Amino acid sequence: MNIKDIAKLAGVGVSTVSRVLNNHPDVKASTREKVLKIVEESNYIPNSSARILKQNNTKNIGILVKGMFNPFFSEMVNTIGCKINESGYTMILKQSYIEDYKDIDVLKAFINDKRLQGVICLGGNFIDINEQYIKDIEVPIVLTSVNNYNEEFTDGYSCISIDNRKAAYEATEFLLKNGHENIALMVADSYSKEGLNERRLDGFKQALKKYNIEFDECNLLEGHYRSDISYTKTKELLQRYENITAIFATSDIMAIGCAKAIVDSGKEIGKNICLIGFDGMDISEFYNPPISTIKQPKELMSNSSIELLLDLMNNKSEHKHIVLDTELIVRESCKIRIK
Amino acid sequence: MNIKDIAKLAGVGVSTVSRVLNNHPDVKASTREKVLKIVEESNYIPNSSARILKQNNTKNIGILVKGMFNPFFSEMVNTIGCKINESGYTMILKQSYIEDYKDIDVLKAFINDKRLQGVICLGGNFIDINEQYIKDIEVPIVLTSVNNYNEEFTDGYSCISIDNRKAAYEATEFLLKNGHENIALMVADSYSKEGLNERRLDGFKQALKKYNIEFDECNLLEGHYRSDISYTKTKELLQRYENITAIFATSDIMAIGCAKAIVDSGKEIGKNICLIGFDGMDISEFYNPPISTIKQPKELMSNSSIELLLDLMNNKSEHKHIVLDTELIVRESCKIRIK
Repeated sequence: MNIKDIAKLAGVGVSTVSRVLNNHPDVKASTREKVLKIVEESNYIPNSSARILKQNNTKNIGILVKGMFNPFFSEMVNTIGCKINESGYTMILKQSYIEDYKDIDVLKAFINDKRLQGVICLGGNFIDINEQYIKDIEVPIVLTSVNNYNEEFTDGYSCISIDNRKAAYEATEFLLKNGHENIALMVADSYSKEGLNERRLDGFKQALKKYNIEFDECNLLEGHYRSDISYTKTKELLQRYENITAIFATSDIMAIGCAKAIVDSGKEIGKNICLIGFDGMDISEFYNPPISTIKQPKELMSNSSIELLLDLMNNKSEHKHIVLDTELIVRESCKIRIK
Repeated sequence: MNIKDIAKLAGVGVSTVSRVLNNHPDVKASTREKVLKIVEESNYIPNSSARILKQNNTKNIGILVKGMFNPFFSEMVNTIGCKINESGYTMILKQSYIEDYKDIDVLKAFINDKRLQGVICLGGNFIDINEQYIKDIEVPIVLTSVNNYNEEFTDGYSCISIDNRKAAYEATEFLLKNGHENIALMVADSYSKEGLNERRLDGFKQALKKYNIEFDECNLLEGHYRSDISYTKTKELLQRYENITAIFATSDIMAIGCAKAIVDSGKEIGKNICLIGFDGMDISEFYNPPISTIKQPKELMSNSSIELLLDLMNNKSEHKHIVLDTELIVRESCKIRIK
C-alpha cells in the first residue's frame, strides 16, 4: 500500500493525499475525513526515505521574515514552506529584526551568503529599492505583505499585498454606521511613522473624518502584536474612559487581549463594547463570542507568492504587482447598534 | 543615538534592548515599557546594516520541524531563531512531513545537503537512532520534544523533553478528584500508535484505571491539532452523549475548538463541562473564560535546546538527556466540582 493506492481508493489525486497527511489547511473537510479513514484502515505507513536520500538538493529559496512573532506570518511560512518542499527546493528562513533597519541590505546579504535562487520577503520596508539594486541582486524577489516599497520604481520585482488603508477604513466605517462615536484603535506601534500600521491608522482617521468625528490621540493604543500588552492597555483605557463603545484592533492576536480586558472590566463583548480584529485567524472565529475581523486572504497570498516566485525563477512570468481583496467578517462581537 | 545609548538611558543591557526591539517575550513588562518609551522619545532608528553586510556567514544551524502546523512549534522556532541570530549563525529551517516516515534519514540528508554545524529536531520519531548512525552524522544533534528516541542507546546525542505521560495523568487525575467520571479525551490522532499522543493517551488511561473507571473508546476524539476539526468532533460528541462533564484536549489549539463547541451546545464552560488544554499558549489565558492548561516550559525548552547545541558545537558540554517539568494551571474552565 503506497500513497498512490491511498489516492486511488479515496478517488483523489496524490497531491491531495499528501496535503491531508501534511495537515495542510487547503483541503475540504469531507475529503480530509475520507482520506484519513482510508489511511487508518489500510495501516499505510508513509515511507519516502529512499527518495529523500537520493536528493542532493542545492536549490535554495529564501524567506526573509520581518517580525515572525506575529503568528500571521508563521502561518504563511508554513503554507509557503509546504509548496517549496513540494517543488523540490529547500527553504532557508531568515528572521529579520527591527534593528536591522535597512531591510534591502539584509536581503542582499542573505541572497549572496546563501546562494539563493529566489526570495520571498514577508513584511519589512523596501522603500529604498531602485534600479541599480535590482541589477545587483539578479535573482527574483517577491515582496509579500511588506510595509513599504518604492512606488516610483516598481520594475524588476513583484509585490503581493492587501489595501491596508481601505481595509481599516471599512472596519471603522462599519462601526460608525452602527452609531459608534468613541472608538479606540489598537495598533502594533504608533512610533513607526511609516508602513502597514501607518496605513491602517490612516484608514481609521479617514473614516472618522468622513463622519465628522475628531480623532482623539487618547483613544490610540499600542499592543505590539501581543495579547498580554493589549489586555493591560485596554483595561487601563476602559477604566479611564467610560464612553468607549467600540475597539478596532489591527491584529487578531491583539484583539484577543482586548476581548478579555472587556470581560474583566465587567462589560459584555458585542453588547457594551463592540470589537473588530484584523487578519482572520482561527482564534477570532472560535473565541467566545466570535470576534469580527478583517480577513486577509492568507492562503491565497502565500500560494500566489510562491507560485509567482517559481514562475519568475523559470522565466514563465513577468513581475507583477498584485493587490488582493480583504473581507470584513461581522460576528457576534459587533451585533449591537448604538443608535 | 545608538542601541548602547538606549541601553544606558534605560539602565539595562544592550541585549535587553535588542530583545525588546525584537518583541522577544522574555522581558519583564515594566522593562519593556521603559525601553520602548526611551526609544520613542529618542527617535532612535536602529541601523546595523553595515555590520550585516560585513558578515559572510557560512555557519548554518538546522532546525528540522515535524508538524510546524502546530503553533506551539512555530513559537519555539521563533525563540530558537532569535538565539541563532544573536550567536552569528544562520538558521536553516526544514519542515518534515508525516509521509517522510524515517525521520533519521531526512535528518541525515538535511545535515549533508546543507553542511550544517548542528541540528535541533522539533518533534519526530527517532526510535531507530543507533551508534553507527551517530558516527556517520558527526555533528551534534539535540532532539527536542520528539515523539520517540532509542531508549536503549542514548549516547552521542541530546534530548530535551517533558514527561507527557505524567502530565496527562495529572490533568486527568485533577478532573477525577473533582468528581468527573465521564471525561472525553481529544488527541491529535489515535491511529499513530507511538509517540507523544500515545504517551498522553497512556497517562489518561492510567489515571482512569487508578480511579476504577473504565476507558470508553467512544469518548476518544481526534482533533488533528486543528480548532475547526476539534469543534465539529466535540459538537457531535455532546449531541450523542449527554453525560460528558469534562474534556481534556492534548493541545490548546484543539481546546479552543472544544470550548466554542461547548458554548454552541448551549452549555457553560467550567459549569456544565470542564475543559483542560495542553501547551500553555497565550490563547488559553485570554479565552473567555480562561482555559486550564498544562503549561509546557516553552521558553526554557527552546533556550535550553539552542544553548546546549551551541555548547556541544564548541565542545563545552557533554550530551545530556533533560526532562523538564510541566505545570497544571487551573483556570475558570474547571472551577466547578461535580460531587
